[in-house]
Amino acid sequence: MKLDTQVWIEQLRAGDPRALSRAISTVENRADGWAELLKGLFPHSGHARILGLTGAPGSGKSTLVDQLAKHYRKENRTVGIIAVDPTSPYTGGAILGDRIRMQDHYSDPGIYIRSMATRGSLGGLARTTADVATVLDASGRDLVMIETVGVGQDEVDIVRLADITIVILVPGMGDDVQTIKAGIMEIADIFVINKSDREGAERVEREIRAMQSLATRSDNWTPPIVKTVASEGAGIKELAAAIAGYEAYLHKENLVLHRNIQNWQERIVEMLRDAMLEKAREQVGDGHLKTYAAEVAEHKRDPYSLVEEIIQRLGQG
Amino acid sequence: MKLDTQVWIEQLRAGDPRALSRAISTVENRADGWAELLKGLFPHSGHARILGLTGAPGSGKSTLVDQLAKHYRKENRTVGIIAVDPTSPYTGGAILGDRIRMQDHYSDPGIYIRSMATRGSLGGLARTTADVATVLDASGRDLVMIETVGVGQDEVDIVRLADITIVILVPGMGDDVQTIKAGIMEIADIFVINKSDREGAERVEREIRAMQSLATRSDNWTPPIVKTVASEGAGIKELAAAIAGYEAYLHKENLVLHRNIQNWQERIVEMLRDAMLEKAREQVGDGHLKTYAAEVAEHKRDPYSLVEEIIQRLGQG
Repeated sequence: MKLDTQVWIEQLRAGDPRALSRAISTVENRADGWAELLKGLFPHSGHARILGLTGAPGSGKSTLVDQLAKHYRKENRTVGIIAVDPTSPYTGGAILGDRIRMQDHYSDPGIYIRSMATRGSLGGLARTTADVATVLDASGRDLVMIETVGVGQDEVDIVRLADITIVILVPGMGDDVQTIKAGIMEIADIFVINKSDREGAERVEREIRAMQSLATRSDNWTPPIVKTVASEGAGIKELAAAIAGYEAYLHKENLVLHRNIQNWQERIVEMLRDAMLEKAREQVGDGHLKTYAAEVAEHKRDPYSLVEEIIQRLGQG
Repeated sequence: MKLDTQVWIEQLRAGDPRALSRAISTVENRADGWAELLKGLFPHSGHARILGLTGAPGSGKSTLVDQLAKHYRKENRTVGIIAVDPTSPYTGGAILGDRIRMQDHYSDPGIYIRSMATRGSLGGLARTTADVATVLDASGRDLVMIETVGVGQDEVDIVRLADITIVILVPGMGDDVQTIKAGIMEIADIFVINKSDREGAERVEREIRAMQSLATRSDNWTPPIVKTVASEGAGIKELAAAIAGYEAYLHKENLVLHRNIQNWQERIVEMLRDAMLEKAREQVGDGHLKTYAAEVAEHKRDPYSLVEEIIQRLGQG
């Protein structure tokens, strides 16, 4: 490893916030040296507990995450927050809300917040999020919380990489809420009914229970349901207790390593895919790609045969 | 091409619904012969107009799509509908609502509805959807409508592949609606405010206008806003007129081919990625993958170096 990468990693591990921010940017943007940095950081990772929190727009995720972070700070545990923002694939901009949140915690170096925007269409968001979590983990944070809007496959991928997945529901969502619930039932280790002072909280709870009675998890865990009113801090203690309860269960049943091995199988394949894609892009080149795309768009060529030809050429090259 | 694939394609193009269903299943599941089938169908595609419709859960997408389909049927145009269902990555089940919808149109062979579930974490959903659209296109449908819940990156990818993208909003969504709107502003060619008899429709319209004043599109098109109450069929005619208006604009400005070339650049790269992933998986093998994942999970090995090693070996193999 290069000497300056070593120095950088030492600064980051010593708690230098600028070294941390620079490392996250480098990893997020795949800037020069990102792979070497991650190789150097990886041996220091594996100590943080990774929480994934997901919920529909309007479910009060950010408020809940902030309250939970404050709770952990009272226990003297350090927290890193990655807010994955499903906004523009083009502008990729950080949202205003994020800055407001950062100010709120500004005086406390024990809370680090970073928002990540959805990148271009070639995905890798789940992978980048996981890599940023590795950086925060290696920096010595006790907890890393990943929050994301929970509807698309991307979000499912992101929260699946967490040790503990928390799904946030609210009373009174639209007609399609059944559809969402069906999708997240299987990834939730803990359910939160936020804004539970609203009408309909009991009904949401009954619906979760009804769906739970239909499916059993391979690990036999029955996800508890915690009711919160995050804006008032109500139920946060209970949520932290539920998280601790699931952690204890994971340890008792020896499931942590098992779950990690499963996650790494997926991550390794994703990493392979990204690396191979990069190789393919290099070999095809932007100019050729445009020509190919024009030929296909004009129906002079079918794309399925084209891709086969390119792959064959790569094998020989 | 094999003779039976040729016969199959002929049946499909002659309007045989079973040949069409079988072709879609084959493509969706990547079953034996899928690539050969698509190669054979591709030259027949390119005539359908592809509409992408996206909106948050509860925005009434399905009702709107159904009403629009009925409208086009009155004009004697045939319709294919692909409903992309962001439910379970595990069960991948078709939802009940889909069957109900199919029954509703059962008597009319001019409307074909197919729902697609979100597949496993390795994505390709956008690509599969595009391939299924190609099958429907080649079968001679005049219009192919792709409907999807519009929040995650996956959904953005899916609707971006359409010729015309319609974003559906409703009055009275949650706090995060600004976030969603920011994400879809750039992909919307037409906005629909559905359930526009609800309070707040004017406010949604003002918000769209305000955001439009901040950003200009590279093609200088200003997406119109159409108000509908899909459950009563109100505004559907106006929506069809807005779609026709954008089509006319695309033709006048000669943008159709330009847009298709751009889309194909992305699709070809995605196809390359999928093909290379398959190759990588074959070469690594399931058994090795588990061993690697265990080594990484136990922190005996860093995954970044591991992937580099595998790629290097692939190049030599």
